[in-house]
This record gives sequence, structure tokens and C-alpha cells, in this order.
Amino acid sequence: MSFPSKPPMRDALVEAAFRLFLERGYEQTTVEDIVTLAGVGRRSFFRYFPSKEGVVFPDHERRLAEVTEFLSGSGRGEDPVARVCEAVRLVLRLYTDNPTFSVQRYRLTKTVPGLRAYELSVVWRYERTFAGHLRERLADRPDGALRADVIAAAVVAAHNNVLRSWLRSEGEGDAQVAVERALAYVREAFGDGGGPDRQDEDVVVVVSRRRAPMWQVVREIESALGPGEEDR
Amino acid sequence: MSFPSKPPMRDALVEAAFRLFLERGYEQTTVEDIVTLAGVGRRSFFRYFPSKEGVVFPDHERRLAEVTEFLSGSGRGEDPVARVCEAVRLVLRLYTDNPTFSVQRYRLTKTVPGLRAYELSVVWRYERTFAGHLRERLADRPDGALRADVIAAAVVAAHNNVLRSWLRSEGEGDAQVAVERALAYVREAFGDGGGPDRQDEDVVVVVSRRRAPMWQVVREIESALGPGEEDR
Repeated sequence: MSFPSKPPMRDALVEAAFRLFLERGYEQTTVEDIVTLAGVGRRSFFRYFPSKEGVVFPDHERRLAEVTEFLSGSGRGEDPVARVCEAVRLVLRLYTDNPTFSVQRYRLTKTVPGLRAYELSVVWRYERTFAGHLRERLADRPDGALRADVIAAAVVAAHNNVLRSWLRSEGEGDAQVAVERALAYVREAFGDGGGPDRQDEDVVVVVSRRRAPMWQVVREIESALGPGEEDR
Repeated sequence: MSFPSKPPMRDALVEAAFRLFLERGYEQTTVEDIVTLAGVGRRSFFRYFPSKEGVVFPDHERRLAEVTEFLSGSGRGEDPVARVCEAVRLVLRLYTDNPTFSVQRYRLTKTVPGLRAYELSVVWRYERTFAGHLRERLADRPDGALRADVIAAAVVAAHNNVLRSWLRSEGEGDAQVAVERALAYVREAFGDGGGPDRQDEDVVVVVSRRRAPMWQVVREIESALGPGEEDR
């Protein structure tokens, strides 16, 4: 599936809208004002955007479709949490590819409660898309749907934490580097979605009291590791 | 701080509103209709509720205030994640204490997009309240704000997973029992908010490949444990 490139009229509408929002304020700008400045008819606006709010987040519908397609294209054996993290990088790029626009919009959404609500619904749709993928892939795990929902929320929160810091600093610093650190934290907590009870993998986790004598620790590890190389 | 008990006029407004919402639909009901049925003036409505949406979620302002107070009352040495989990139980009780009302509202919010948006903003305010508490208590941990945001989101997602299942099943089953299981999953993943890299505590976590030779595992543990009893 390929996505049609953005038509210039659409770009012109976004540009006109933001010029007016910044000049006279969001509430004081009507769709009428926007189409007049862009030099197009009112109908053209609604061909591209569902509402005035829609023009503030012009690329999310497309990115949501891309993310959905990206997730559905993953192989059965693939780590679903890793795939969702990859999708999150795609979403973040929507902001970091255009810092000036992203920072302008951030200032706008901070001051207009209606836009804040709209943004929450956009974030929620990403979260449900991630959760949907994880629910499907973790269906045979105990509490698969719970795990899916919790991991999706954690991944989105990690993304948002990085995004907000970056926007607050007016696009300074490398958000893509910061998000790696944030996603690593989430992945350390949840692994591949199996969580603390995973058993069939190549990794053993031993938790021990700091003051435990070494012989006791070794015994614990031996029992966790199971039969050694020589016994197999 | 004590919270005033609910005045009967407020209850009467909620009751009238829901009767009309169910009879003729949410969009078709005006504030005028609600005050007429309740037999009070229009001003009384707006004394209790900021908007028509507000009457659909009549108890959340109060519960948010209670949760904020509950969190701020926790001792310095207390596990902040445990405290947030306790606050989540308070929020869930708002629903489970009144199953009929909760299920009615769930049906309503499912069909009215504006209410769904309002609900998202309510959930978001709880999440930010939890995150605020965790941010304060994890301030001296590495990436404290990130941890706080991620854990708050995970806790809220766990709550919502349980709540949605319970509402979908029309209030069948014990949601308070289910939420314990869900919160246990989150707490297993994040512990007390220290996460995988905590260092100043009495517990050492070693992750090792299953096939690693024992001498290598022992060496890793020794370095993680630091100087042994005899060297201290």
C-alpha cells in the first residue's frame, strides 16, 4: 500500500490556518478565514480535514494508517513489543521531522482546551492501535489482554515523556536518542510481553539479597539454570 | 479536609439527566429539559456541573480531590507505587459502588463521541495526578520523571482494563479482586519505581544467559554484589 503524496492545496490550508492561529488566536479564526487566506473554497477544506481541530493535527490520520499497516506486516515469530517500539519511533518522527511546526502547535494546544481534548483522542487512538496488535500477539499468554493494554500505555507514556521534554525545550536536543533510552526502560520492565513469569527463554533472572552468602546464591542460580551443559 | 455530603438537589439533577438521556438520547436532551424534570432553576444546574457532560461524570471532581489529598498524605518512606495503587482502588470503587449507574453511563459514553472525549480528559487528569506524586517521590532516581510517567500510565491502563471488562459484562464478577491481579502485574514489572537499575538497595538482580558457564555467572554476581562481608 502506498500513500498519495500530500497535495499542495492541503499544505496551503495548513499554512494559512497556522498563520491565522498565531496572528489572531485559534478561537478567533474561522474556517472561512482560513479558506479565504488560502484562496480556496470552503468545500476544499472539509475534503482534507474533518474540522478546525483536524487542521491542527494534519498528519496523524495518515500516520495512524501507516502504523496500523506496519504492525500488521510483522511476522508471527517477531517480538511484538519490539515492533510496537518501532512504530512509536515512526510516530515521534512525525514531530521531529518538522520541529518548527511541532513547537508552534505545542504552544497552541497548551492554551486551547478543545485542542488538548482533541490531542488526547489522537494519543488514545495510537494507544488502542498498539494495544490491538499486542492483544493479538499475546493472546495465548496468561492475562494477554491485560499485558497488552498495560504495555501499550507504558510505551505511549515513554514516547510522550520524551516528546513533551523536547517540545518544552523548543525542539532542542535529539528526541530520537532520548526515546531509545525511554523505550529501553519499558522493555526492561516488560521484556517481550511475557513479563516476570516467562520460562521458556534463554535468560535467567536471579534476585538475591545483597548480604546472601555466595554459596546460597550459587545454589539458587544452579536450580534456576536447570541441568548444566555437561548433564544435557 | 472533609468533603461535604452530596446535596439532594445535585442527586435529583443526576437522576433527571440520566432518565432523559436513556429515554430520548443524550444529544436530544438539553440542560433546560433536565432542570425542568428536576424541578429546579437553570442556575442550580451550573452550580453543581460545569456542563452537560459534567452531569454524566458527577463524582470525579470530588474523587480527584480525595485522591490528591490521599497521595499527599503519604509518608516519605512509603513505597510510592503502592500508594498510587491504593489510590487506583479508590477510583475503581467509584464505579463498583454503583454498578447500575456505571453500566448505564458506559452504554451512553460508547455511543456519544463527545462523552468519550470528556471521559478521556477525566482519565488523563487521574493519570497526571498519579504521575505528579510519583515524579515528586522518584525525583532523586535516575530518569525519575520518565519512570513516574510510565508507571502512572501502566497503573491507569491496568485499572481501565479491569473496569472495561467489568462494565462490558454489565457489572458481573468482582472487579476489586480482578484489579488486585492487574496491579500485581504492574508492580512486578516496576517494583517500587526503582526499576531494573536500582543500586542502593538490599537486593541484587542478575540477568544471565541460560547457557552461561557458572564461573561467568559467579563473576557477574560478585561484581554486582560489590565487596563481600569480609572486605567491608
